[in-house]
Amino acid sequence: MTTLYEHGTLAALMAGNFDGTITVRDLLKHGSMGIGTFTGLDGEVLILDNEVYQAVASGKVNHITDMNATMPFASVHFPAEQQGITLTDVNFAKLNNDFVKAHKLNNVFAFLKLNGNFKHVKIRIAPKQEKPYPTLLDVAQHQPEFTADNISGTIIGYYAPEIFGTITAAGWHLHFISDDRQFAGHLLAFDASELTGSFEVFDNLEQHLPVENKEFRESTVDMSTLRDGIAKSEGNAD
Amino acid sequence: MTTLYEHGTLAALMAGNFDGTITVRDLLKHGSMGIGTFTGLDGEVLILDNEVYQAVASGKVNHITDMNATMPFASVHFPAEQQGITLTDVNFAKLNNDFVKAHKLNNVFAFLKLNGNFKHVKIRIAPKQEKPYPTLLDVAQHQPEFTADNISGTIIGYYAPEIFGTITAAGWHLHFISDDRQFAGHLLAFDASELTGSFEVFDNLEQHLPVENKEFRESTVDMSTLRDGIAKSEGNAD
Repeated sequence: MTTLYEHGTLAALMAGNFDGTITVRDLLKHGSMGIGTFTGLDGEVLILDNEVYQAVASGKVNHITDMNATMPFASVHFPAEQQGITLTDVNFAKLNNDFVKAHKLNNVFAFLKLNGNFKHVKIRIAPKQEKPYPTLLDVAQHQPEFTADNISGTIIGYYAPEIFGTITAAGWHLHFISDDRQFAGHLLAFDASELTGSFEVFDNLEQHLPVENKEFRESTVDMSTLRDGIAKSEGNAD
Repeated sequence: MTTLYEHGTLAALMAGNFDGTITVRDLLKHGSMGIGTFTGLDGEVLILDNEVYQAVASGKVNHITDMNATMPFASVHFPAEQQGITLTDVNFAKLNNDFVKAHKLNNVFAFLKLNGNFKHVKIRIAPKQEKPYPTLLDVAQHQPEFTADNISGTIIGYYAPEIFGTITAAGWHLHFISDDRQFAGHLLAFDASELTGSFEVFDNLEQHLPVENKEFRESTVDMSTLRDGIAKSEGNAD
């Protein structure tokens, strides 16, 4: 059995619940690879073999060693049944169509890691917010974007079925980090001739909710506003 | 940490994926209490302290001892942090409003068990389907309903947040069984002067998907059709 662990929900982020509700220490008990964000929606996080990297809105990448830092939203797993892959002429369109079809991912959660030389990468980085927090939709409309050409790096992230689209980002949710760990963020677009890596399908989602958090317990959700906000905030490009 | 284990999704049931994908034996490894249905949408299941009861469409209640029987959809848990409760003048309206508010259940999963004398109970029982399976919406429109007055019995079931409403039934999903184990089904309405029991809030949903099942992997979901179908199939009364 392979398990994807997720802390927090996209719905709570949409509502502006940006306070961290799990420590890095606790998160790493559930996985050594993954993605997420810090308290205040502070940046884009990648966890690679237990090393935690945070891209902040200035474009700087921090190597996080504070195990007490907290996160409102994160997905992690322990690699278990990885399948090696090589993809050629790869971009979001290819991942969204050919790859999803070939591996029948529509209704399952999966992890993807790809490494190599990228002709082009476009990323965005969520800027840290202060209280009172705005909604995710407000933040999404003012996020710095960065591009890089001819850069070596790694993509990691997850695929989620559409029916889970209020809990986490449906489809691919990928973060990029360069091999020199100087350039990282939430992946908006990319183009590469050949990438190698691994992927795996999970048969289990362990969805952890911050039930002790007052704001989480008391926040209300309007489903149509939520769906509309997610559609506007989480569009991936291509 | 308290965990609710769920096998299968409401979306897959809506699509007519009624083949069992977990055995009773395997399900009981994840919980001793719960609800579900058997292959072919054959009846309404209650699991009480590892005893499995199935109400079939004739109204008969079977005590299931075949550990190889399979289920397409089920929710179970091991009681862990139960809180004793007594409710007076209780019906669905009270559960949906007062109880949800008092315990701040909106955004969390919870379990409820209530026992006592019921002035009135109305249940429905899904009739067994044969292949090619219809959709859940088709089945929902032709389900036998039964009522009973002045009956002693037990309600068990779960509360799920609205954002999980494509994965499982949002709000309360409760099954009833009489103390003499002769009358049981999916609870549509009830009325009681006083019921006692227990409830608990889960901080973790373990969502298991039948990733090895071809029909599950290949089924496609149209989100607006799904939402509309769920609204029409899963209405609870009151």
